[in-house]
Amino acid sequence: MNSKPIGVFDSGIGGLTVLKEIVRLMPAENTVYLGDTARVPYGTKSKETVSRYALEDARFLLTREVKLVVTACNTASAYAIPELKREIPVPVIGVIEPGARAAIEATRNNKIGIIGTEGTVKSRAYSKTIQAMRPAVETFEKACPLFVPLVEEGFSHDEVTDLVASRYLKELKAAGIDTLVLGCTHYPLLKETISGFMGEGITLIDSAESTAAEIRGLLAEMGLSNDTDRTSHSFYVTDSPERFSRVGRLFFGERLNGPELVHVEAN
Amino acid sequence: MNSKPIGVFDSGIGGLTVLKEIVRLMPAENTVYLGDTARVPYGTKSKETVSRYALEDARFLLTREVKLVVTACNTASAYAIPELKREIPVPVIGVIEPGARAAIEATRNNKIGIIGTEGTVKSRAYSKTIQAMRPAVETFEKACPLFVPLVEEGFSHDEVTDLVASRYLKELKAAGIDTLVLGCTHYPLLKETISGFMGEGITLIDSAESTAAEIRGLLAEMGLSNDTDRTSHSFYVTDSPERFSRVGRLFFGERLNGPELVHVEAN
Repeated sequence: MNSKPIGVFDSGIGGLTVLKEIVRLMPAENTVYLGDTARVPYGTKSKETVSRYALEDARFLLTREVKLVVTACNTASAYAIPELKREIPVPVIGVIEPGARAAIEATRNNKIGIIGTEGTVKSRAYSKTIQAMRPAVETFEKACPLFVPLVEEGFSHDEVTDLVASRYLKELKAAGIDTLVLGCTHYPLLKETISGFMGEGITLIDSAESTAAEIRGLLAEMGLSNDTDRTSHSFYVTDSPERFSRVGRLFFGERLNGPELVHVEAN
Repeated sequence: MNSKPIGVFDSGIGGLTVLKEIVRLMPAENTVYLGDTARVPYGTKSKETVSRYALEDARFLLTREVKLVVTACNTASAYAIPELKREIPVPVIGVIEPGARAAIEATRNNKIGIIGTEGTVKSRAYSKTIQAMRPAVETFEKACPLFVPLVEEGFSHDEVTDLVASRYLKELKAAGIDTLVLGCTHYPLLKETISGFMGEGITLIDSAESTAAEIRGLLAEMGLSNDTDRTSHSFYVTDSPERFSRVGRLFFGERLNGPELVHVEAN
C-alpha cells in the first residue's frame, strides 16, 4: 500500500505547481498526474460541470491504484470536494483548506485577500473556510481571469502582466490586506509580479506549498508514507500531450516524462 | 424545408459574431445556435479532440432539424470540415473558405496576414486554402492566444489590449501585408484596436461577414431561403447559461433569449 502512488489531478497544466511541491517535499513518493486538457479550463465553468469532470478525473486516478487523491485545481476544490469525499474510496485532499489555514497563520491584521478564477471566487470557498476557522478575519476576493492565459503565453515577467496585475489588485491593496492567497495553480508563477505591485509587507500564500505539507502530515499519520529510493512519476492527459510537455516545463522544470493520452469521460 | 432553421455551432460565445451577421443579412431566417461552453475553448486543443467535439455539436443541431450547419468556430472549421461534410447529411459551411476568398478579393500586393488561435494557425488552413485559390499569394500567420480572454474580460478597448496587439502584430506589419484575416470569431470585437496598430491602409477581413454572404448565396442557389415574417432564434449551451447570456451581449447585443442547457457528448 505505501508504495502506491499519490494521485494528482488538475484541469490541465497548472496542477504541476502542486505536484512539484509534493515531489520536493516527499521525494520518496510515487506520483500519477492527470491533466484534463481536453476540457480545460474549469475556472469559467459551472459547479455542476466542474463536479462531473472532477469525479471522472478522480475515478481515472483510482484505476491507477492511487493511495490518495489530490485535487490540485482550486476551482475543482472549491466546488467538488464534498462530492469527491463521498464518492472516492481513498482520502481526498483539496487545496482550499491548506491554503486557508496557512493564510490564517500568516495574517497579523486579520485582513486576507484571495485571488482566483471566476469559479473559485464565485464559490467563496476560501472566505467560507477561513471564516469558519476564524470568524474575526475579513476577506476580500477578486477574480483574475487573465492571469492564467498570461502565464501560459509565457508572459509571467512582462509589462503586460504588470499592467493587468495593477488593474486586478488595486482594490485589494487599498483594502489594507496583509496576506494574499494565490488561489489558482498558475499564480505561483506570478509571485514576483504580484509582490512587486502589492509591496514587500504582504505575505503571499502559495496553496501548493501548504497542500504538499498537509499531504505529508496525512500520510505520516495514516502510516502510508513511502520509503523506497526508486520513484516513478507518470503523467496522463486527455488531449495534446505535446502541448502539455512544452508548456508544462514552465511549471515543473525539465523532468516531465512524455505524458500518455487517455479518455476519462464516463460512458 | 425552407422554414427550417439554420444551425450554427461554436466552441462557445464567439460564434455569435457569425450569427449576428446571418441575422442581419437574412432577417427572415430561423436560427438555432449551440455554444459548447462545457468544453470551450477549442483553440488550444488537438485536431482529434476538436473534430470529435465538432461532430457531436453538429449532430445535436441535426436533432433540431436544421437545413444547414454553420461551423462558426475557426478552429473547428480548420480541423473538421472534411469529416463534418462526410458525416452530416445537410450542407456544412465553415468560415475558412469564405474568409480566404474575401482576402484574395481584397489584396492588391498579394501579401495576406492571418491571425487566429494556436489550432487554426497550426493547421495552416487559411494559407492552404488561399494558396490553392491563388498560388501567387504570400501568407503570414500568427497565433494570438490572449485576444480571446481579453475580449471576454471586456478589455476590447483598453491599453492592455493595445500593448498585446502591438506585440502580436508587429511582424505582420513589418512583412508589408495589405490584408489581414481576423481568423477567430472574437477578433471582430478588436477591429479598432487592430486597425489602430496596423494603420488604415490595411484591409481587415471579417470571416463572419463573408460567411453570412456565402450562406445567403447557397440558400438561394438551393432554393432553401425562407420568407416568413416571424422568425425565431434559439440558443443552446452545454454549460453556464447565465455566463453565456452575460458575456454574449458583448457579441450579439440585447436580443439573446435565455439559452437552454443541453448535453451533447456521445455516449
